[in-house]
Amino acid sequence: MRTDVNTLGEFGLIEHLTRDFPLLQPSSLKGVGDDAAVIDNGAFCTVVSTDMLVEGIHFDLAYVPIKHLGYKAVVVNLSDIYAMNAFPRQITVSIAISNRYSVEALDDLYAGIRAACEAYGVDLVGGDTTSSPKGMVISITAIGQGEKELLTYRNGARVGDLICITGDLGAAYLGLQLLEREKQLWQENPGIQPDLEDQKYAVGRQLKPEARRDMIETFRKVGLKPTAMIDISDGLASEIFHICKQSKVGALVEESGIPMHPEAELLALKFKLDPATCALNGGEDYELLFTIDPADVEKVKYLPEIYIAGEILDANDGIKLNTKGGNLHDLKAQGWVHF
Amino acid sequence: MRTDVNTLGEFGLIEHLTRDFPLLQPSSLKGVGDDAAVIDNGAFCTVVSTDMLVEGIHFDLAYVPIKHLGYKAVVVNLSDIYAMNAFPRQITVSIAISNRYSVEALDDLYAGIRAACEAYGVDLVGGDTTSSPKGMVISITAIGQGEKELLTYRNGARVGDLICITGDLGAAYLGLQLLEREKQLWQENPGIQPDLEDQKYAVGRQLKPEARRDMIETFRKVGLKPTAMIDISDGLASEIFHICKQSKVGALVEESGIPMHPEAELLALKFKLDPATCALNGGEDYELLFTIDPADVEKVKYLPEIYIAGEILDANDGIKLNTKGGNLHDLKAQGWVHF
Repeated sequence: MRTDVNTLGEFGLIEHLTRDFPLLQPSSLKGVGDDAAVIDNGAFCTVVSTDMLVEGIHFDLAYVPIKHLGYKAVVVNLSDIYAMNAFPRQITVSIAISNRYSVEALDDLYAGIRAACEAYGVDLVGGDTTSSPKGMVISITAIGQGEKELLTYRNGARVGDLICITGDLGAAYLGLQLLEREKQLWQENPGIQPDLEDQKYAVGRQLKPEARRDMIETFRKVGLKPTAMIDISDGLASEIFHICKQSKVGALVEESGIPMHPEAELLALKFKLDPATCALNGGEDYELLFTIDPADVEKVKYLPEIYIAGEILDANDGIKLNTKGGNLHDLKAQGWVHF
Repeated sequence: MRTDVNTLGEFGLIEHLTRDFPLLQPSSLKGVGDDAAVIDNGAFCTVVSTDMLVEGIHFDLAYVPIKHLGYKAVVVNLSDIYAMNAFPRQITVSIAISNRYSVEALDDLYAGIRAACEAYGVDLVGGDTTSSPKGMVISITAIGQGEKELLTYRNGARVGDLICITGDLGAAYLGLQLLEREKQLWQENPGIQPDLEDQKYAVGRQLKPEARRDMIETFRKVGLKPTAMIDISDGLASEIFHICKQSKVGALVEESGIPMHPEAELLALKFKLDPATCALNGGEDYELLFTIDPADVEKVKYLPEIYIAGEILDANDGIKLNTKGGNLHDLKAQGWVHF
């Protein structure tokens, strides 16, 4: 028998492959299924997250400067640690590369990795370099630290909690559309100059995303512990589904509450795309989605870049989107399908 | 300018790429350059090691059963944790796969991973699955725990220390030669049956290596702390060089003290290879190379599968091999060259 991996999808495949792995070590507090694994070390926990980026699937060096690739590869992993309400401290970086890459290209890659390490205060402590028959694969593991009682999981949202989003959504996806379009134009006519001039914001969100370390620091300052948290890597809708599934709740998302940058909205219209769909399903913005106890609303109300975009409902109420037009739809999670 | 990665070699490339990464986090006790990174968590340290395996470079599914691949991929990482005199507790597994792989094939891979987790008492706590344009890449990170004062580094060997080896060497390399030969014969004549019958030991060492957890447990029992330790993944000669370089010492290795299995010796002769060269440069046996204070010799003398194979010298004495014929040669580290 031969079952195609496409039939399961990425999340289905992970669930399927890891279903028979019980956690037996007393220090394994959290295994597969959150932004990061959690290992007990007494008062402080070690939080571990890992990501693999494959050339031709996750990145295209035709328009991604390799230094930016190094930076982004680190940032997306750090984002997972922050999404646990913890702080990254170390990373390991493994790369497989074909002989098409020169030492100078790798120096640029590691310059980007170093820039991210410096910006976020993490140390590169290990890794592996090996050759690959074709293309590049980057695998990064981020290791963080967090107080056990402050860690936030995907399964902590309760009915009545408010749904919050940091920063704006959709721009990274639209930046990608723009880069893809310019690449295609360039392939058809190599003499052409790319026209990205007036879209710096969206292109920047795609090429050089940042992780919301500032928000985690702010939470500490104002004494806020979200009830659940996840980073928005696959798109808001997909992340809402993760939180609802693991917390066994439903949700009502207000389309009017989903923050978008004006440049991203305009770009969506240029591409004849629905801006809200880009914000809901675009992904790669690396903002945080979190839920809070309504009693904590005063703590976030006056904070910049935190938007309240809905409410947690009972599981029986489903996962709904209240559109700007006032219609109630079932929310659909498209996310990214790599397979 | 374009410098080919071949000019640096694998270890040179890692050194080159990571040379400008200072360790700034107080918890980063050890970064790049040992079997594993060490993170301070008070009395106990977290020990982290990571490896990337690429299809067509590190494994060939023409003769490696995919379940064995999963088992071995885990074991080689655990071996790095044991080489720190620590115990692995958790792993993360990331894979990139082309659509050539079925869910059933991945189930077999994960069955091997699970068998290793069960055999060594480690939990799978995270990872990533993604698609790849071609072939398979497996990246595993092992996370272990060790008492800070018991951890063994590569840089602790002192002049006069004895050089010890667990188990026998060379068989895994010879098993690989045999499998490669049978693959070639099979490609020339697909009707042929592989002839591995009488070489079970060498083939088993290649396809299903084990990490020396038993030795680390024995060290604890007899109260032995090696002065330096490394696992033998790239070949004894290469590992001796790592220890000597980092400990700033020389070494004298006795060819007569290098343990070989009789089947491996016979197989070497069949292949018209010098058995000692196979043992020195073969690699993939995943035995431990360690040095001990001569005052501790009584603790290891009567232990099975521990062989004393030489002595640590002053750095000015170089790294020498005393052959069975009584000649003194400079030892050469060929190791594995993947680039």
